Amino acid sequence: MARGTTQSLPEASEWATTNAMNAPALTSRPAATMDALRALVATDLAKVNRVILTHAHSDIALINDLTAHIVAAGGKRLRPSLTIAAAQLCGYTGERHVNLAACVEFIHTATLLHDDVVDASDLRRGTATANALWGNKSSVLVGDFLFSRAFQLMVADGSLDVLAILSQASAVIASGEVHQLMVSHDLSITQAVYEQVIAAKTAELFAAACELGAVVSNQPQWREPLRRYGHCLGMAFQVVDDALDYRANETDIGKAIGDDFRDGKVTLPVIAAYAKGSTSERTFWEKAFEHGTQVDEATLRQANAYIAKADAFNFSIHVAQQFADDACAALASLPDGTIKDAMVNAAIFAVERSY
Amino acid sequence: MARGTTQSLPEASEWATTNAMNAPALTSRPAATMDALRALVATDLAKVNRVILTHAHSDIALINDLTAHIVAAGGKRLRPSLTIAAAQLCGYTGERHVNLAACVEFIHTATLLHDDVVDASDLRRGTATANALWGNKSSVLVGDFLFSRAFQLMVADGSLDVLAILSQASAVIASGEVHQLMVSHDLSITQAVYEQVIAAKTAELFAAACELGAVVSNQPQWREPLRRYGHCLGMAFQVVDDALDYRANETDIGKAIGDDFRDGKVTLPVIAAYAKGSTSERTFWEKAFEHGTQVDEATLRQANAYIAKADAFNFSIHVAQQFADDACAALASLPDGTIKDAMVNAAIFAVERSY
Repeated sequence: MARGTTQSLPEASEWATTNAMNAPALTSRPAATMDALRALVATDLAKVNRVILTHAHSDIALINDLTAHIVAAGGKRLRPSLTIAAAQLCGYTGERHVNLAACVEFIHTATLLHDDVVDASDLRRGTATANALWGNKSSVLVGDFLFSRAFQLMVADGSLDVLAILSQASAVIASGEVHQLMVSHDLSITQAVYEQVIAAKTAELFAAACELGAVVSNQPQWREPLRRYGHCLGMAFQVVDDALDYRANETDIGKAIGDDFRDGKVTLPVIAAYAKGSTSERTFWEKAFEHGTQVDEATLRQANAYIAKADAFNFSIHVAQQFADDACAALASLPDGTIKDAMVNAAIFAVERSY
Repeated sequence: MARGTTQSLPEASEWATTNAMNAPALTSRPAATMDALRALVATDLAKVNRVILTHAHSDIALINDLTAHIVAAGGKRLRPSLTIAAAQLCGYTGERHVNLAACVEFIHTATLLHDDVVDASDLRRGTATANALWGNKSSVLVGDFLFSRAFQLMVADGSLDVLAILSQASAVIASGEVHQLMVSHDLSITQAVYEQVIAAKTAELFAAACELGAVVSNQPQWREPLRRYGHCLGMAFQVVDDALDYRANETDIGKAIGDDFRDGKVTLPVIAAYAKGSTSERTFWEKAFEHGTQVDEATLRQANAYIAKADAFNFSIHVAQQFADDACAALASLPDGTIKDAMVNAAIFAVERSY
């Protein structure tokens, strides 16, 4: 599905060279930001926020309390911004993209709420915010409510193409989350399996969000390129997110390292460090990822040291860079201009934010 | 929305008389069963089961393990049976109702899985089956997967009417579940609020399941009557289910009484007993429904005694009987024959099973 899924892990020196040859010379231009994209979508995004507020509303007070906390309060709105930008890039001048961008955000929020749900065994580690305040059941049911609202909005829009894209995305996301659960604590998974998981749980909704832009614009020839852009951008974002969990330095290690390691999520830095580790290092990882292990600060520090020794953080960033390059390349057939430039910048930023 | 939602609670003697006058003389005819309905839908239901098996399948082993346990193993399939029977009653001869009946069952199963999710505070009481075996997260995510599969099947069917009916049903069910969570432990709720909750969490999917029969048959004039039949049948079923939680006699009280009482769910028997209770009885109920109360066997026994004293079980059955009567009446404009007779019998059975 994506580059790098079948290749074996290269030596650090090897990919560092490759990366240096392919990547833009970062020092010679200003740092990439999301600012241009944010400016282009700002007006439409304000409309999206109004749709979200209206359609997240319910007669049931608890639903409003929880959605006010998690969805109405606003986040980065990255995924709906992609729907808007993609529609603009396709020259769309109507209003359908506003409601559909809200659908994308509802599905994303439902996923976050459901990802908050914890098992009894996780409780000792504390819980995420919405769950800590309202509990498992509320998180699940309000997630279901938002998910259903998304489908009601799609039905009102009336396009079976849209419904097909987002119902598939929902099924793929759920599969990806279950897959992640299945392989948690499993150090034997390969980079390919890791990429399958994040392609499903993260990149699929990025891909769908972008593809919608071509659908509302009635530009079917751009569905696949925009889908590819979204997929690769989502992969880059997730790989970087997972890498940042291990960016700790000696002074703030207890804070910065962490959540994934504690949760037993086997992400790319761990796969890389484990693959290159000595016998004693591999034993360390196996012990740390055993079910039920309580991770203390010394273990966190040691994990970080092994990640650094294997150059596994930088390896992850290199993989993310490849996905970002692919994202930019996917836009080749789309119209040049400020919108495309902003989307290219978003892909570069997805990786640069890790520096 | 339904009869009885605004009326004050009648004296037991009063409604007993009313009931005796309106109800068929039960001793003069054979007991109602679901057998006729089951026989009529058997062939189509076998097809539904094949669709369920095919579409619940996934590449992810954990999804298959869990769906094999909860959906493929089969249950009563009451809701999909209603879709099939309603389509037959409308004279439908096509195949669309098979996939749509599977959608209804997927949504029902997703709801069950999500209803299984427990908060930390519930764990001491033990958990429902799927959750106990696989945990909260699996229950949530596999529920999401089945829910998404339902929407994919609807998209493949291609009818926006169908999508509107089932996306609305999903939103209403989620709202109803949240509403139920909000009013749990709340003895001040009225019969009207109780009926609002069960109308949303239970009767809405019965109504939708039946309405689909008219949609696939292209008989729009029968959508509302079938919806009404489904709503009233669902209400009758849920009221009886809730009443049966208090059917315990002295010998098996610890087993038969229970789950709702332990969960702090304020159902109709409790509302009726609390409304008619003496000061000391009301104090008992208030104490028993306080958050965090551990219900022991003596408390269960006492609750049952007060339910019996207030004749609150029989009052609930009387309310259910009214809904069953309304269900039968709703079918007046539909074609007479064996299918309608079977659906009428199903409504009578919904109440008679409590005797």
